[in-house]
Amino acid sequence: MTVLKEGVTSPQGFLAGAVYAGIKTRPDEKPDLTLLYSEHPCNAAALFTASTLKAAPVLLSQKHLGDGTAQAVIANSGCANAYVGDQGRQDAEEMARLAASKLGLADSDVVVASTGVTGQAMPMEKVRIAMPAITLDRAGGDSFARAIMTTDTVPKQAAVAFKLGDQEHRVGGCAKGAGMIHPNLATMLAFVTTDAPVESAFLHKTLQEAAAASFNMISVDGDTSPSDTLLILANGAAGGAMIDERSEGAPLFGKAVETVCVELAKGLARDAEGATKLIEVEVVGARTEHDARAAARTVVASPLVKSAVYGNDPNWGRVIAAVARSGITVSEETLSLFWQGTCLFEQGHPVPFDKSAMSAATNQPEVRIQVDLGMGRAAAVAWGCDLTEEYVKINAEYTT
Amino acid sequence: MTVLKEGVTSPQGFLAGAVYAGIKTRPDEKPDLTLLYSEHPCNAAALFTASTLKAAPVLLSQKHLGDGTAQAVIANSGCANAYVGDQGRQDAEEMARLAASKLGLADSDVVVASTGVTGQAMPMEKVRIAMPAITLDRAGGDSFARAIMTTDTVPKQAAVAFKLGDQEHRVGGCAKGAGMIHPNLATMLAFVTTDAPVESAFLHKTLQEAAAASFNMISVDGDTSPSDTLLILANGAAGGAMIDERSEGAPLFGKAVETVCVELAKGLARDAEGATKLIEVEVVGARTEHDARAAARTVVASPLVKSAVYGNDPNWGRVIAAVARSGITVSEETLSLFWQGTCLFEQGHPVPFDKSAMSAATNQPEVRIQVDLGMGRAAAVAWGCDLTEEYVKINAEYTT
Repeated sequence: MTVLKEGVTSPQGFLAGAVYAGIKTRPDEKPDLTLLYSEHPCNAAALFTASTLKAAPVLLSQKHLGDGTAQAVIANSGCANAYVGDQGRQDAEEMARLAASKLGLADSDVVVASTGVTGQAMPMEKVRIAMPAITLDRAGGDSFARAIMTTDTVPKQAAVAFKLGDQEHRVGGCAKGAGMIHPNLATMLAFVTTDAPVESAFLHKTLQEAAAASFNMISVDGDTSPSDTLLILANGAAGGAMIDERSEGAPLFGKAVETVCVELAKGLARDAEGATKLIEVEVVGARTEHDARAAARTVVASPLVKSAVYGNDPNWGRVIAAVARSGITVSEETLSLFWQGTCLFEQGHPVPFDKSAMSAATNQPEVRIQVDLGMGRAAAVAWGCDLTEEYVKINAEYTT
Repeated sequence: MTVLKEGVTSPQGFLAGAVYAGIKTRPDEKPDLTLLYSEHPCNAAALFTASTLKAAPVLLSQKHLGDGTAQAVIANSGCANAYVGDQGRQDAEEMARLAASKLGLADSDVVVASTGVTGQAMPMEKVRIAMPAITLDRAGGDSFARAIMTTDTVPKQAAVAFKLGDQEHRVGGCAKGAGMIHPNLATMLAFVTTDAPVESAFLHKTLQEAAAASFNMISVDGDTSPSDTLLILANGAAGGAMIDERSEGAPLFGKAVETVCVELAKGLARDAEGATKLIEVEVVGARTEHDARAAARTVVASPLVKSAVYGNDPNWGRVIAAVARSGITVSEETLSLFWQGTCLFEQGHPVPFDKSAMSAATNQPEVRIQVDLGMGRAAAVAWGCDLTEEYVKINAEYTT
């Protein structure tokens, strides 16, 4: 498997483009309206927010994906089109219609994704005016990734290539989402594309498993805003035999999707609002994968752990407190903890350490905390970021 | 019921005192070791942390309260005596023994409560040296409340008097706890005293119900640190008939304990780390009390809502997003929202509002958000505070 430097238009047959429509009212004129288009019909699968009140674009996209196929995405930043009554439904429908009309597709072939402020109607006149200005090309993945950004500071993209026999396939993706504290965050949008031909049910299963190991393991998680969306499109443009659960290439395809999703998820954690450090928490020695994941996620989401990492303080007591309230069975006597590779707590006993050396070791762009529960063989990794004054500033000033 | 200005020594027969033992290493010499003593044996009930790894003082206190009685509390700040292996058990036992010996009690009559940093052994030599210097008196409740403070900026005390027939009874209390973001916080310690004679099972039930409406409804909640403790002592010193579930005075006693607990809980929320505002979230029109409580707690714990309140931004969309992910059934069409008394969302539709007027209305020491689910008759109130840069600063700098 080869890592590439591109995103959603890296696989064959995908085009994208974006314009500044003025949906974002800030005057920096960064693109805020964008299209992703496949030259061939795609099998499609998606995971959406678990919120009880879903935004209009999510409800519409769920409907359009009912047949397991799609061929385009229209996405925007600046307005989430959420909590605006029936107007939201009408506007989401018109956005799909505008994209379908431009691309010569049926409305139901278009997925709609919106992110930005809630409670404000979509400025449809701006969308109508801007739509013709969007031009699509093979290099448009970067524009697409930038046009979905809100408080993100960098676009998040990833792509890999892998071979099945002589046939090269690619998986590409991009994501946005810059909230920070689990479980209540900014919207997460993520789009994954592949030119491999993939059977529908297997595509869905692959996406779920990849999400469980990636987006569900960061403290920016997927079940919070009314708009969270993770979509995968498989257009088969690279040719080759259809991949399903029994195919020889199934594990490799699954690994490729997981690799792209993990890379995007880490990118989200690293670029979270105000973050200065990526935190990686690995829990090993758990009795079950469920236990390992629950413990890792609880630690990485702890505001006290996040604050400590920000302050270069190896406050391992806060890590143990988080593990101990994660709902899993823990034994103090078998538990050990490593902070940037140094053991600070060994099977129930604190290990003396040099404070200034550990503080210096924590003053790094990536901080790794490892917890060995000493109870089994299951393991999991979660990613998050430090909690900074800047996070509060961003979220206090981000206007309604 | 009359509100009094005192705390744990307001009810008859309770004495307290505190000294600076040097457990807190900061040089401000505020008291950090304290005793609460009842002149009469007490019926006692307590709720402790739900953490899987409980601190040594919690495990010992659970054991000592096994017979439902106690007569004294030894408490300290500066060291939580948690995660230090068997040494913690030995030190907690010695603290109980030192207190019992000074007060002429059995070890098992003493409850031990410690708060402060974890992973460091209790400096027992300092405790031994300081203990004789503690003097007990009726005015000592204030010293007790101050000696359990960590990053708290003010002591939290409350007391009420009520009459059953001709007999006046009092309930007093104090609390500490200055963490902020549910559900991972600083330790909460709370102590409630009464001179009413109260039957053991009813005392426990009363404490549970009062906690459900108070400490469990703030975003500093009781199930997080290894040391969280809520204790009630009833010494019967005011005389009168034993109060049990069937007594005429039972509801009034219950109300008195709840009033003290709610006052203390609001005090914790108001004084949370870095907080500048108290947030009160009332959910009405819920189908069940469980739904109302879940929704109110989710809103008040939301970092995005907290940040918005700090920024004087009436970002009601974040409130609805929190309600919608609280796990309860919600209908957008029946939901209405009031922010400082002004309706901003009415049965599915945003209500236009004057941004500068609403921002000014939010720039107050107390911010009240009301959500009407429009689905039933149950209601609940939760309390929290805004999220500020100062919170991050405090938690980044609080040393291991």
